[in-house]
Amino acid sequence: MSIFTKIINGEIPSYKIAENNYFFAFLDINPNAKGHTLVVPKKEENKLFELSKEEYLSLMDFSYRVAKAIEKAIPCKRIGMSVIGLEVPHVHVHLIPLQEMKDIQFEKKVMVSKEEFIAIAERISNYFE
Amino acid sequence: MSIFTKIINGEIPSYKIAENNYFFAFLDINPNAKGHTLVVPKKEENKLFELSKEEYLSLMDFSYRVAKAIEKAIPCKRIGMSVIGLEVPHVHVHLIPLQEMKDIQFEKKVMVSKEEFIAIAERISNYFE
Repeated sequence: MSIFTKIINGEIPSYKIAENNYFFAFLDINPNAKGHTLVVPKKEENKLFELSKEEYLSLMDFSYRVAKAIEKAIPCKRIGMSVIGLEVPHVHVHLIPLQEMKDIQFEKKVMVSKEEFIAIAERISNYFE
Repeated sequence: MSIFTKIINGEIPSYKIAENNYFFAFLDINPNAKGHTLVVPKKEENKLFELSKEEYLSLMDFSYRVAKAIEKAIPCKRIGMSVIGLEVPHVHVHLIPLQEMKDIQFEKKVMVSKEEFIAIAERISNYFE
């Protein structure tokens, strides 16, 4: 069982943004930038392009809605999207508010307090449509 | 007119992978890894999430087909996907054959000869469905 499945199941707490029957979005606990969000299919699949076309497009659709909410909630130049997956073998879409290239290189990390995580999640979640 | 529009129009030569009425896929001339491909909508839009949901999902659909072809043509652990756009204000999806995290950080670049670019483009293109 992946760490993301444990988060989806509530065994590991998370700062949730949005959820439906198929997908779960929550704040990355080790974010590149404030508002850095992960969108994960509840079905545990390793690779993005191993999802069926239909599952993949549903994931992209849900991610679009989350990105729109982040964009409204977090001041930034644009929302970057990245799917890598070399570390956790459970598909996850990174949605990251970008100010500069370094924000999507996964080297620079920002510190966020628990109170701020809660406030950011609530703010993004309120914009989710 | 963006550099990608010039490539799409043939004013700047490129190593083409695939094309339809709406999208154009070609090899990144300064690749992170061999087989690094860009997928671009012919309509010049700056930001991914400014595309309408329909345009965005069509772009993602086309990118899925290109990614499947790259995966068959280029030995790699998986295909990474990244949309950033801080440099060229014309939406482009990076599809990158990954062996390690550095392949998607846009710092390490690989040298590819003209002959090899041609061979790689042809190989990926032949797998495109």
